[in-house]
Amino acid sequence: MTPTDIPAYMAHVGVAARAAATAMAAASTAAKNAALRALAQGLREAGPALQAENAKDLDAARAAGLAEPMVDRLKLSPSVIATVAEGCEQIAAMPDPIGEITGVKRRPTGISVGQMRVPLGVFGMIYESRPNVTIEAASLAIKSGNACILRGGSEALHSNLALWKLVQAALVQAGLPADAVQLIETTDRAAVGRLIAMPEYVDVIIPRGGKGLIERISAEARVPVIKHLDGNCHTYVDAQVDLDLAVTVTDNAKTQKYSPCNATEGLLVHAGQAAAFLPRIGAVFAAKGVEMRCDPRAQAILSGVAGAQVVAATEADWATEYLDKIISIKVVDSLDEAIAHINRYGSHHTDAILTTNHPNAMRFLREVDSASVMVNASTRFADGFEYGLGAEIGISTDKFHARGPVGLEGLTSMKWVVLGQGEIRQ
Amino acid sequence: MTPTDIPAYMAHVGVAARAAATAMAAASTAAKNAALRALAQGLREAGPALQAENAKDLDAARAAGLAEPMVDRLKLSPSVIATVAEGCEQIAAMPDPIGEITGVKRRPTGISVGQMRVPLGVFGMIYESRPNVTIEAASLAIKSGNACILRGGSEALHSNLALWKLVQAALVQAGLPADAVQLIETTDRAAVGRLIAMPEYVDVIIPRGGKGLIERISAEARVPVIKHLDGNCHTYVDAQVDLDLAVTVTDNAKTQKYSPCNATEGLLVHAGQAAAFLPRIGAVFAAKGVEMRCDPRAQAILSGVAGAQVVAATEADWATEYLDKIISIKVVDSLDEAIAHINRYGSHHTDAILTTNHPNAMRFLREVDSASVMVNASTRFADGFEYGLGAEIGISTDKFHARGPVGLEGLTSMKWVVLGQGEIRQ
Repeated sequence: MTPTDIPAYMAHVGVAARAAATAMAAASTAAKNAALRALAQGLREAGPALQAENAKDLDAARAAGLAEPMVDRLKLSPSVIATVAEGCEQIAAMPDPIGEITGVKRRPTGISVGQMRVPLGVFGMIYESRPNVTIEAASLAIKSGNACILRGGSEALHSNLALWKLVQAALVQAGLPADAVQLIETTDRAAVGRLIAMPEYVDVIIPRGGKGLIERISAEARVPVIKHLDGNCHTYVDAQVDLDLAVTVTDNAKTQKYSPCNATEGLLVHAGQAAAFLPRIGAVFAAKGVEMRCDPRAQAILSGVAGAQVVAATEADWATEYLDKIISIKVVDSLDEAIAHINRYGSHHTDAILTTNHPNAMRFLREVDSASVMVNASTRFADGFEYGLGAEIGISTDKFHARGPVGLEGLTSMKWVVLGQGEIRQ
Repeated sequence: MTPTDIPAYMAHVGVAARAAATAMAAASTAAKNAALRALAQGLREAGPALQAENAKDLDAARAAGLAEPMVDRLKLSPSVIATVAEGCEQIAAMPDPIGEITGVKRRPTGISVGQMRVPLGVFGMIYESRPNVTIEAASLAIKSGNACILRGGSEALHSNLALWKLVQAALVQAGLPADAVQLIETTDRAAVGRLIAMPEYVDVIIPRGGKGLIERISAEARVPVIKHLDGNCHTYVDAQVDLDLAVTVTDNAKTQKYSPCNATEGLLVHAGQAAAFLPRIGAVFAAKGVEMRCDPRAQAILSGVAGAQVVAATEADWATEYLDKIISIKVVDSLDEAIAHINRYGSHHTDAILTTNHPNAMRFLREVDSASVMVNASTRFADGFEYGLGAEIGISTDKFHARGPVGLEGLTSMKWVVLGQGEIRQ
């Protein structure tokens, strides 16, 4: 079907996805894993044909004057292909999340009641640029027994179409429906508008991309969205703390990488430790060229550090995700003030307390309203692979359904199962 | 604040709810249970003052010409008060869902990663008629550490205001914020429009009422909705079955009560059992005056049953929730046909297979895409109390977040906790 009439085309795609979802929900673990391994093999054998399609996108991107880092993100180099092929095999090796039955308990009436994990049905993935997301999304859909509808970036259409053909061949080889993974074959933006507003065909939307894209989709979607907005993460150095640990962990949380969403953007220090801790971390930041945007008390201490770039913070700084060599720093008088600051200015992503005080650690864990809360660890650990999820669908900054790093379970739901021997309701 | 400027009023309510939610999330189990017991006592002691407010609503309802069954639903009789007071004490006696930490595992990096159950934050409850829902919603909010904003029916406003005063007194007596439970003090419909479109203040909406209300709210809400639409439930009698059990369970599923959402509306019978089973269940239905809307094969058999009201089913019958003395009946040739029929025409609420065949039972559990799937039990068991949840927020026909009967856990979310000893990311 050629995608000229967008509503008709999307309805056609939706109907096919629903039908495929029914078959995928009933698919055996062996068949799903066979498809994933066939896909890995297909990717490794695709070679020149895949490169030729990818080259079309690369040429078009360069002709359109895209900056080389952006062109780079489109590239399906042999090492990128090797990585995604290995990813398929890793997902094949994971336990099947589907069919798990938990918590079965006998009730006084005689029935046994428990829950069974089943696929959500159909998910839509909307992403930009990198074509390898096509394979990641497809492999997550296959393993979790869902069908998916993919909408990649227009600049990667040739690459995505070529990858999709490999996915469909792998599905068919394993006896699974080719429509379990569909790619929207048009770059018409109206297709996205339909994709996010077809609750009869699509159960959840997962956008991957910039904050603008995700906000727009969240605002317009008629189905649930697993959305990842910004990560304005904090590290709080408590009154009682191992100072060496605090310096090491704070340094890592800010400077190990500047661009990830789980890097610390705000540092809070208890007044009782400010004089001892701030000069030490200030020297580290000065050496690495990290600009410090400070409240007056922090500024007074840090201004004395040799080579430190210290400026006064504005109100806007407390709410800013820099993703850069910048950190906001504030001295607080209590744990309460730290928690209140984080809950007010943070983005409910990831926040850590560094402390030796157990009650304070427990209060921080309980009262900081974030997807990940940590004690004596770097915020950089907030990641599906570091958490042992094996695969990461995305990171959710919502509280509903899935929160924080989302693994395959985020694409499943628990239904109730009742096992009886002829019981009736009195 | 008097509710004349609705957007300003609702923003005021929202800000107060968010502030109260923070305090409720940190509230001790003892304080929450004390509030619930104080509320039970307050209800029992309210007596004449509460009756006087309730009488205003009853008089107005009668003056407006409401039918007596509708007036009855508004009545806060001593027995209704006794029941809701007892409900508060039952919820006080339940384990606190908040603060539970599960699945903590040590990772190769040295960090320990698990999940902690925390409140969702603020929920909005929109309901009609029965004022006792005010107390049910308030007690669920208190126990789950959430704040809530209640919008009851305009015909129950005086009763709801009086009940709300008791709730607030109980909260204050237990040292909890009065704003943890707020009631919208205007009957202006614009307030509902705001309530369901304030994601900054409200995390989830729970509507209780007719299908029209729930569809309208779901279509317009800008926040997640725990919604309960229709219950078109099925009982399928398989080829291998204990006929006595099948007659008993099918009878109970249809006739124990006709109005609940978990009553069976459609009966499917394997062709191999139709001649043996249908005359027996047909005689039961005939004796109870249940009309049978049949496909041709079922009609041919059932027409021979003395006193049976048998008519030909139309396509619309397969998709209809009767909530009445009517059942649709179809003979199918296979388990596959039964599953396909249920997934196509059912409402994904509750469906049961009656069988002695284990593989068929397991396939039915896995492949029927409904919130509750049962083997050899009456569909009437699909209920939060029968499932042992202790309290029922509602029944969800969605797959996202919570599915089927929803207990207190439906008002919570799991956040990640990371316990370290100074680990950093490499």
